[in-house]
Amino acid sequence: MSNPIQEKIVHGEKLFPFAAYEFTPAFPPELFTAHWHSDYEIIYMQKGAVTFGINGISYPLSAHQALMVNPYQIHYSVSANTSDFSFTSIVFGNSLVFPSTESRIYTRYIHPSAREYIRFFPVLTQETASGMDSLKSIEKICLLDKSRPLCYEMEIQILLLSVFCNLLRANAYDMEIREDFHTLSYVQELLYLLRKNFAEDIKLEALAQNMNISYEHLCRSFKKVVGKSPKKFLNDLRFQHAVYLMKTSEHQAIAEIAESCGFSDMSYFAKCFRQKTGKTPSEYRNHMAGE
Amino acid sequence: MSNPIQEKIVHGEKLFPFAAYEFTPAFPPELFTAHWHSDYEIIYMQKGAVTFGINGISYPLSAHQALMVNPYQIHYSVSANTSDFSFTSIVFGNSLVFPSTESRIYTRYIHPSAREYIRFFPVLTQETASGMDSLKSIEKICLLDKSRPLCYEMEIQILLLSVFCNLLRANAYDMEIREDFHTLSYVQELLYLLRKNFAEDIKLEALAQNMNISYEHLCRSFKKVVGKSPKKFLNDLRFQHAVYLMKTSEHQAIAEIAESCGFSDMSYFAKCFRQKTGKTPSEYRNHMAGE
Repeated sequence: MSNPIQEKIVHGEKLFPFAAYEFTPAFPPELFTAHWHSDYEIIYMQKGAVTFGINGISYPLSAHQALMVNPYQIHYSVSANTSDFSFTSIVFGNSLVFPSTESRIYTRYIHPSAREYIRFFPVLTQETASGMDSLKSIEKICLLDKSRPLCYEMEIQILLLSVFCNLLRANAYDMEIREDFHTLSYVQELLYLLRKNFAEDIKLEALAQNMNISYEHLCRSFKKVVGKSPKKFLNDLRFQHAVYLMKTSEHQAIAEIAESCGFSDMSYFAKCFRQKTGKTPSEYRNHMAGE
Repeated sequence: MSNPIQEKIVHGEKLFPFAAYEFTPAFPPELFTAHWHSDYEIIYMQKGAVTFGINGISYPLSAHQALMVNPYQIHYSVSANTSDFSFTSIVFGNSLVFPSTESRIYTRYIHPSAREYIRFFPVLTQETASGMDSLKSIEKICLLDKSRPLCYEMEIQILLLSVFCNLLRANAYDMEIREDFHTLSYVQELLYLLRKNFAEDIKLEALAQNMNISYEHLCRSFKKVVGKSPKKFLNDLRFQHAVYLMKTSEHQAIAEIAESCGFSDMSYFAKCFRQKTGKTPSEYRNHMAGE
């Protein structure tokens, strides 16, 4: 299991910048916390139904549908809508879709204006021919990454290019700018800082002051785009990381784990734990070990 | 019509390094003179039959077959085997097949050893499944370059990747090194110098001396790999360029054209012309204008 918080930072390896992450109830979508990056991402719903959020707007996704996440968009899961589900998140370096930012494919199609990337419409369904073709390609990508036959890297590149080619030809992208880039930019900054420094003692008021906006305004904007307040986001992130460490670092003391995740107060950590799992941290760990 | 001598130097444009050149009896394969480059090239026989040479070995190609030319291989046409024919030569920058020389696709498949590029077997026929699939992709590439629909660049990239993927999976490449790289390297150097400086007064003996080999040895090696002596190659190249200029620079005097192609002696130029076309240069020009 990869680290749910760090996973989004490195997509595959430098030599082949591609990664597919699978989420199931055992690795629940609550771990798919709000983040953003300069790459495109495609979320493919294998079975069941989950609601995702992009820049504050909810998109319920059912089986065999996909969500296109454009560069710099803040995206996260909101809730699982069926008890059983699985989805795959595909993230890839832009070099797999265009050779360089100097290339004609990039300048003509991906980044046609100086201002912004081509922003595809979010939901791909089987209702249109381009959606159907794209979904077929995306499903193949997920399978290829599992079986990894000879030259699967080339085939994945071919399929990613096909998806882009399909959607561009079907005009499945938005020419209008609907987002408030100014608000988005400081929410992105705060999100980046929280994800990077969650283990430390973070003073939200001081961060707002550094960013030159009022704390209230920052909180309101953050909640609007991310779906929860910065405080709750930070707390959830710390909790998720603690759970991750309790699963993977069997010999680390619980107090040590709590501290390494930014919980300075052990009783507060225990309270959070009981609220979310109905168990104390030790009960939870024993329960995990017994599974 | 592009310049038959220079055409191989720039393949498309930097932003989309891809070019397809068509050859017919009106733009005959004699103009497809020996050259080499670090890119892969694919020659697709649309109709009729033409024999090509690669590093001194002849490959007769019939309709709907293709020739894979690997990086650094010296390639040229030998003769047309039918009176009517057409073939398309596809040349593309390597960046269309692998994102960079750092990428996994490059290091794992294209350049697996430090010594050399993957060298595909030369002739693609419809007799194998991989040949058939590759030929279909190559034919589509030729058509796409003519119609150039939206995103045709992406589709061409997809098809080129498919050809490589197909051939790699079918093991349609040679693991053994059959060439004498030492001999090839100075033939390549001489070829490069002749193509670059054909308009100037070239002393072949002096070039051999500069390269530190005997003139006789150089001529023998050159003829073995290119199919004709350096002297004949140079003469043919000059003649072709003169014909090209006579077709495209209508107002340039014949003596001026002869000189700009490296013919210092007008009467020698006229003699060459009569030998090859049965006409004097002026008769040839009038004949061209009347067509």
